[in-house]
Amino acid sequence: MKDEFKLIERLLASASRMVKRESDYIKVPPGDDACLLSGLRHPVVTTDTQRENVHFRFDWQTPEEVGRKAVSVTLSDLAASFAKPVGLFINLGMPFSVSEQTAEELYEGVGRGLAEYGCALGGGNISASDLLSLDLFAIGEGFAGLFPLRSAAKPGEGLYCTGPLGMARAGLDLLKKNDRDFQRLVNGFKFPKARFDAAKVLMKHGIRCVIDISDGLKGDAMHLAKASCLTIELSIDRKNIDPDLAVFCAKYGIKPEEMAMAGGEDYELLFSCSPDVYENLKNELPEAYPVGKCLPFTGSPIIAPPSELSSFQHGSRQLFP
Amino acid sequence: MKDEFKLIERLLASASRMVKRESDYIKVPPGDDACLLSGLRHPVVTTDTQRENVHFRFDWQTPEEVGRKAVSVTLSDLAASFAKPVGLFINLGMPFSVSEQTAEELYEGVGRGLAEYGCALGGGNISASDLLSLDLFAIGEGFAGLFPLRSAAKPGEGLYCTGPLGMARAGLDLLKKNDRDFQRLVNGFKFPKARFDAAKVLMKHGIRCVIDISDGLKGDAMHLAKASCLTIELSIDRKNIDPDLAVFCAKYGIKPEEMAMAGGEDYELLFSCSPDVYENLKNELPEAYPVGKCLPFTGSPIIAPPSELSSFQHGSRQLFP
Repeated sequence: MKDEFKLIERLLASASRMVKRESDYIKVPPGDDACLLSGLRHPVVTTDTQRENVHFRFDWQTPEEVGRKAVSVTLSDLAASFAKPVGLFINLGMPFSVSEQTAEELYEGVGRGLAEYGCALGGGNISASDLLSLDLFAIGEGFAGLFPLRSAAKPGEGLYCTGPLGMARAGLDLLKKNDRDFQRLVNGFKFPKARFDAAKVLMKHGIRCVIDISDGLKGDAMHLAKASCLTIELSIDRKNIDPDLAVFCAKYGIKPEEMAMAGGEDYELLFSCSPDVYENLKNELPEAYPVGKCLPFTGSPIIAPPSELSSFQHGSRQLFP
Repeated sequence: MKDEFKLIERLLASASRMVKRESDYIKVPPGDDACLLSGLRHPVVTTDTQRENVHFRFDWQTPEEVGRKAVSVTLSDLAASFAKPVGLFINLGMPFSVSEQTAEELYEGVGRGLAEYGCALGGGNISASDLLSLDLFAIGEGFAGLFPLRSAAKPGEGLYCTGPLGMARAGLDLLKKNDRDFQRLVNGFKFPKARFDAAKVLMKHGIRCVIDISDGLKGDAMHLAKASCLTIELSIDRKNIDPDLAVFCAKYGIKPEEMAMAGGEDYELLFSCSPDVYENLKNELPEAYPVGKCLPFTGSPIIAPPSELSSFQHGSRQLFP
């Protein structure tokens, strides 16, 4: 990597065209050995990885799109934890073959993503690598007194979702098939949103069990069911299937409910609460709809209609101590 | 990656053989979307990367040694920032070809390192990768009222170092040459220490300008000089050269002062202060010694004896917003 320092300056200039460098939270930016933040009463931390040919491909996504998505995907875990984003740190693995222009475009996307969520770029690290990779670390300020847990679901509660499912996986399939139709579905894959807006409503209504849907409804409901020691019975009403997804599924002979069940990377929030609470919050979150029920443990964590689609694998998993 | 979840459990069991899972700081471990920490008054954040064939090689280092060093190298930045380590998060890039045993040994080393510094493992992420890589993210609790800065050096101050320099680079050279002598030098490369003990003394004496030496004395003094807008005149007295390093240099025809000047990855602390303060703190830190002087800016940030050795390149740089 020739002229590393010069490149770093250009990358940061790219990102900061979109996001202001100063932040109320960042007291000493990491020109020093480390970055000093303002005091955090409830620090919430999450990490994510976006690796070339595992999580993204440059023949499907522009560098700017990759950078922007990397931010949303990482911050989505903060949304699911009711935490306000404070700082994002990125370790960039950079092959010699990647042009500086590509790296700059990537950081423009990072800057765009950060601006969207009001998060600061805290710093990070750059090192030589075989394939392009971003390792992202985000810190947020948690909501006082309520940290939603996967283990907080209770029998008798309903399971609900904050938006359409299966869109991102259909978008990925379209990119693989090189089918230029259904731009909304492709956008679902390329431009997921971290649902801080929905989290705000869930927070207000005291929802205690939340997860973001990265592995797909079935996979993430499995995490909830196992952590909460109960059984979740999943079902998706056809009226909650996105119309574009229904047309896509008809074209390719896929059952849309299966696509919604198994598709990953939508980054909608999945939550459980009593049906009464759901009816209340639905006024403020009309796009939410039921996807299942929490039952006492029946011997299996998930009851779902049989499916021909395998669960979504996006190549990374969280490490749980 | 088959049986990812099973592997994750085994990795964490490996690490936690050495370090206790519970921590006063970790309130909700990241079995959930994110990890909730106790409140931090002065959160200090740093990131590092250790990548196969860039930062380590398995024909030189065991997986356990790689894991242990990765922790020290990352936490060293917290030591240089007077912060107590709180939590470490690791994103692991794992090739299909790497055995689970190798990964387990790596995490045993991580656990050993964490236990040494009293830091908890906060979590992280695992994803498929071409070469093995660790992206590390550390959070610490800073020292109230004093965050040492690279920019705080003043003309008239001396520049000092907390321990022998050039050891790690000599150790690396020995591994490259397959020379089995000089085990202390090889250990300098394999087992650097994050100098929290020395930081404690510097903190007590109100030292305001500190950096850890990862790029080599010349490279890191350059960072201080530039950030502080002054000139640093470097000189190392032969009496402060480690005796083993002197013998190594004699064997290979290298000037030991040049090795100490250009060698990186020693992770000693470099600091500036008035000669009076240095005389005082030397009682508590007898291994410290002078390596230069801070002068008003003369037109060049560094004045150093001419050298035939190029500056140390260890393949990664911090990104400074």
